[in-house]
Amino acid sequence: MKLDDLLKRTSEWLKGEGPKSEIVVSSRVRLARNLDKMPFSHWAKPDQKEEVLQKVKNAIEKSGYLKGSMFFRVDELSEVDRQFLIERHLMSKEHATNPRHKAIDLDNKEVVSVMINEEDHVRAQVMQSGFNLLDVWHMIEKIDAELAQHLDYAYSARLGYLTACPTNVGTGMRASCMLHLPALVFSKQINKVLQAVSKLNLAVRGLYGEGTEATGNFFQISNQVSLGLKEEDIIDNLEKIMNQVVVREESARAGILAKNKEEITDRTFRALGTLKNAYIISSSETNRLLSNIRLGVDLGILKHIDRGFVNELLIITQPAHLQKLEKKVLSPKERDVIRAQIIRERLNKA
Amino acid sequence: MKLDDLLKRTSEWLKGEGPKSEIVVSSRVRLARNLDKMPFSHWAKPDQKEEVLQKVKNAIEKSGYLKGSMFFRVDELSEVDRQFLIERHLMSKEHATNPRHKAIDLDNKEVVSVMINEEDHVRAQVMQSGFNLLDVWHMIEKIDAELAQHLDYAYSARLGYLTACPTNVGTGMRASCMLHLPALVFSKQINKVLQAVSKLNLAVRGLYGEGTEATGNFFQISNQVSLGLKEEDIIDNLEKIMNQVVVREESARAGILAKNKEEITDRTFRALGTLKNAYIISSSETNRLLSNIRLGVDLGILKHIDRGFVNELLIITQPAHLQKLEKKVLSPKERDVIRAQIIRERLNKA
Repeated sequence: MKLDDLLKRTSEWLKGEGPKSEIVVSSRVRLARNLDKMPFSHWAKPDQKEEVLQKVKNAIEKSGYLKGSMFFRVDELSEVDRQFLIERHLMSKEHATNPRHKAIDLDNKEVVSVMINEEDHVRAQVMQSGFNLLDVWHMIEKIDAELAQHLDYAYSARLGYLTACPTNVGTGMRASCMLHLPALVFSKQINKVLQAVSKLNLAVRGLYGEGTEATGNFFQISNQVSLGLKEEDIIDNLEKIMNQVVVREESARAGILAKNKEEITDRTFRALGTLKNAYIISSSETNRLLSNIRLGVDLGILKHIDRGFVNELLIITQPAHLQKLEKKVLSPKERDVIRAQIIRERLNKA
Repeated sequence: MKLDDLLKRTSEWLKGEGPKSEIVVSSRVRLARNLDKMPFSHWAKPDQKEEVLQKVKNAIEKSGYLKGSMFFRVDELSEVDRQFLIERHLMSKEHATNPRHKAIDLDNKEVVSVMINEEDHVRAQVMQSGFNLLDVWHMIEKIDAELAQHLDYAYSARLGYLTACPTNVGTGMRASCMLHLPALVFSKQINKVLQAVSKLNLAVRGLYGEGTEATGNFFQISNQVSLGLKEEDIIDNLEKIMNQVVVREESARAGILAKNKEEITDRTFRALGTLKNAYIISSSETNRLLSNIRLGVDLGILKHIDRGFVNELLIITQPAHLQKLEKKVLSPKERDVIRAQIIRERLNKA
């Protein structure tokens, strides 16, 4: 399988399947691990990084889970391909910069991704669409156990796994859910909900992780504390809080249907009208309008469009996806025109 | 003919016919006249106003031009009907308030309108679509001459016609053109052009006269000075300046086609998408979007829509027109919903 084959299907995190997938877009757990007696990536010399890369690659090749997966050295990927993987939530932004001696391994289903020489030597993630934290956690645990058979991890009996950044010490685990919360935004309850979430030691981020805005009403919520907690407690705690957020969003949606049907119908169809007709459109406007359409679909206002189709538009209109579709590098201005054209064509055909 | 019959056709000022009608929407000349030895309307007692009303009505009945015209006492018109006439540019806002002892006479083509006991005893106007100042002036002169056969006007050999407001003394004439100047607005040249126009002693107003904003890129430009000039000089001067404004707008349109084709296509189709899909829309947003569509039609970007159709949407979506179409009084919120519905239906049928 080749990287370009991914382009033919919706990204895993946007499949729109799994429990509560009308609100919880995707669930993700990643583990940070480092090889014992080796400097962390940022301090390692080139040959040390290369040694780490080869050792982890070797361990991956022996993994049953990752059999037949795709392995790439990051410096051999084009800039567009790196951005493409970021857009598909398979690679971090940090991993795409200073690419030498970095690598990434992806299973064919885009469920598993292992980054080598990111901030930590190994950053392994499992991601699935829908509200599946427990499944996702069980799977990453198994992969971790497999890799651990061939790798000697830096581990302290007192602290747990040792990591480059102290916030990851302990379990090395970060669990997160990507939520679509348009009704909480519409009803202006979102800040209250997010403040409550923050007080429970969870971090809230935008569509593309740290430092990005919550575009298109997508919010990524993850645990902050990694030290002094058991893995199951992290998962259990996140799941409970996410459940509450889901209930709040559901009730806000019911409230909109009861009280603001006309207004939300107007907003939904205006979004559709703009997407079907625009000749120039930015990525952020696209995200915002597709979010409105997604809510319209979820509320039964738009009956002839399905969520999977909306999700596909969301991913293929991202900058690197557009450039891979067009098979050439495009300036931001050219992208805005091509994006509008692709959206028009797909929506008017649908 | 009845007032409601007007609803079946486009308003004269929006017919979209006549010279340069892609820019000069309509041309209008009105004359202010007062009966001799009678106090001006604002100072007249009820029986004096009634006497004026009857005298002018009598003169109108003897006019050949106004044969078969519709005569209404303003206090016998409903509020919606008064607003309806304002929207059709047949009655002034001032004439609709304090309606007692006021009247209006309209010819069946909506070209001629005579208001009785507005600020002046007689305010007669002729309006035609397109750039027709000379024709319009010749016509109002003839009507004025007819009425003068049966009315004794207040006239001073030194000053000319005497009027309630000193700005109208002299000819009592105000000539104006309604212009659609979207390209000058788009290219940000409009302020410079309007400032130049103001320095030439012309006044610039919005769609509904004094004190209204230039909604939908419509600008009404009229003479300010009435005293010390001959009628033909007023007309000639206005015509020359309007010609220059028309040339500037034409050149701005050519510039847009050469340099901003994609941007203006985007704006045109977005406007169409919104109008075809919105469920709630205000009058001012409608005007703005229809202005974009009108420009798209004029530039050949929208080929399947004609200007007359756009003009008709512009008039029937005005508040009183909507209420007359629906045959009931509607709150502003109800109007926004009905307006959107009518626009959707007509545009999707077109």
